[in-house]
Amino acid sequence: MIGNIQIIALQNMPEFTASTDLANEISLSANTTIGGIQDGDIVVVTQKIVSKSENMIVDIREITPSDEAIDIAKRTRKDPRLVQLILDQSKNIIRIDADRSILITETIHGFICANAGIDSSNISGNYNVALLPSDPNESAKKINLQLRSIFDIKNLGVIITDTFGRPWREGQLSFAIGSFGITPLKNYSGTVDQHGKILKVTSSPVIDVLATSAELVSGKATGTPVSIIRGYDFEASESDASIILRPVEKDLFR
Amino acid sequence: MIGNIQIIALQNMPEFTASTDLANEISLSANTTIGGIQDGDIVVVTQKIVSKSENMIVDIREITPSDEAIDIAKRTRKDPRLVQLILDQSKNIIRIDADRSILITETIHGFICANAGIDSSNISGNYNVALLPSDPNESAKKINLQLRSIFDIKNLGVIITDTFGRPWREGQLSFAIGSFGITPLKNYSGTVDQHGKILKVTSSPVIDVLATSAELVSGKATGTPVSIIRGYDFEASESDASIILRPVEKDLFR
Repeated sequence: MIGNIQIIALQNMPEFTASTDLANEISLSANTTIGGIQDGDIVVVTQKIVSKSENMIVDIREITPSDEAIDIAKRTRKDPRLVQLILDQSKNIIRIDADRSILITETIHGFICANAGIDSSNISGNYNVALLPSDPNESAKKINLQLRSIFDIKNLGVIITDTFGRPWREGQLSFAIGSFGITPLKNYSGTVDQHGKILKVTSSPVIDVLATSAELVSGKATGTPVSIIRGYDFEASESDASIILRPVEKDLFR
Repeated sequence: MIGNIQIIALQNMPEFTASTDLANEISLSANTTIGGIQDGDIVVVTQKIVSKSENMIVDIREITPSDEAIDIAKRTRKDPRLVQLILDQSKNIIRIDADRSILITETIHGFICANAGIDSSNISGNYNVALLPSDPNESAKKINLQLRSIFDIKNLGVIITDTFGRPWREGQLSFAIGSFGITPLKNYSGTVDQHGKILKVTSSPVIDVLATSAELVSGKATGTPVSIIRGYDFEASESDASIILRPVEKDLFR
């Protein structure tokens, strides 16, 4: 029935390393938490464990900063090696706020966020940082196909999320950085309401809505990096999350 | 139990007018849909029915546009009377994209969005448009206190939402424009993860996360403007949603 959604955090996930079979661990945890994954479920996976299982962890002591990185690091009071990594993972610098030590870039994937999504929390080792997965849509596809196979189901959505800030409003929240099996952006152009008038909403970023919703159960400092959303009637699709990125020529805020 | 959330759309809501007792209608629909509202529930109410019940509907034929409104209307190919209303409901113009007929302002409440949140969908009458509620936090408080009284409960969150676009990413989604009874922004500064490292997330815009989550069950063109989120362990608070608006001096994108 539409109108009744459940969101469940998978319990007892292990520590992830480059040798972890991510989809297999999700399946095991889904078995014990909710008796498995069902046809029509959406699996929402936070980026950090994907990065770990894809060996995207870098020891910043191995990085030699360029002059540009050293200059930006001085202005923003960041570690120059971290700044170099951020530049390496970015296509464009969007904003630098030296006073508040903020560096916002467009990542090589096209996400606009602080520090190119590079982050040291929830990782062991004082010098280790996690880069975003190199192709989060491919990561989502791989997890999706493996879970479909394990549970013998046809209709499954997988979304990889990361936490970004946003303009104008305080706080950081989850956005979809990769997806597979679900229409990322639902088009409402020309749809009319009960009075026959065109809707204000022209498209709904379904995967972002789901990414954010999963936050209700995925703790910030706790070990629940995977959630299942059950009861949401989504459109199956092979298209990936990149369709949700607004092209620069249509964007008023770069 | 944390880790298991339910989101339910209230069914059989009536058409709303200025004489509708909004909280009472929510209580009646909650009774028939889910046997009433419980202690710890969060009630998410879309803006349009609040505007209707607070008589924020304007017939644009009653508006006389100023020269400034006529000029902007010409450039953006909008109705000059609508532009005048938008200017009346705004503190600042943030962006004008003449080619794509976009006018983004900062509303009198402090929201940055297209057309000052003024919208004609889901309203009867060809010339009628709905303004945002004049004080959505007060609207949330009023609904909250009335529902607490009807159901004799102490702990209840009420959030008023509207649908806005956002920079960099396609699609429009729900944001909180008013709230009462729930901490709007949860502070994580200084919180450490399981490895003892500071979290990347410094604060979580709880009411925006909940606003967006309710979208999973509230249809765009259907009559389900109120949702209940059950099982989310929130912090009670008397503070209102304005704390989530980033002050201009901290904002990099105006």
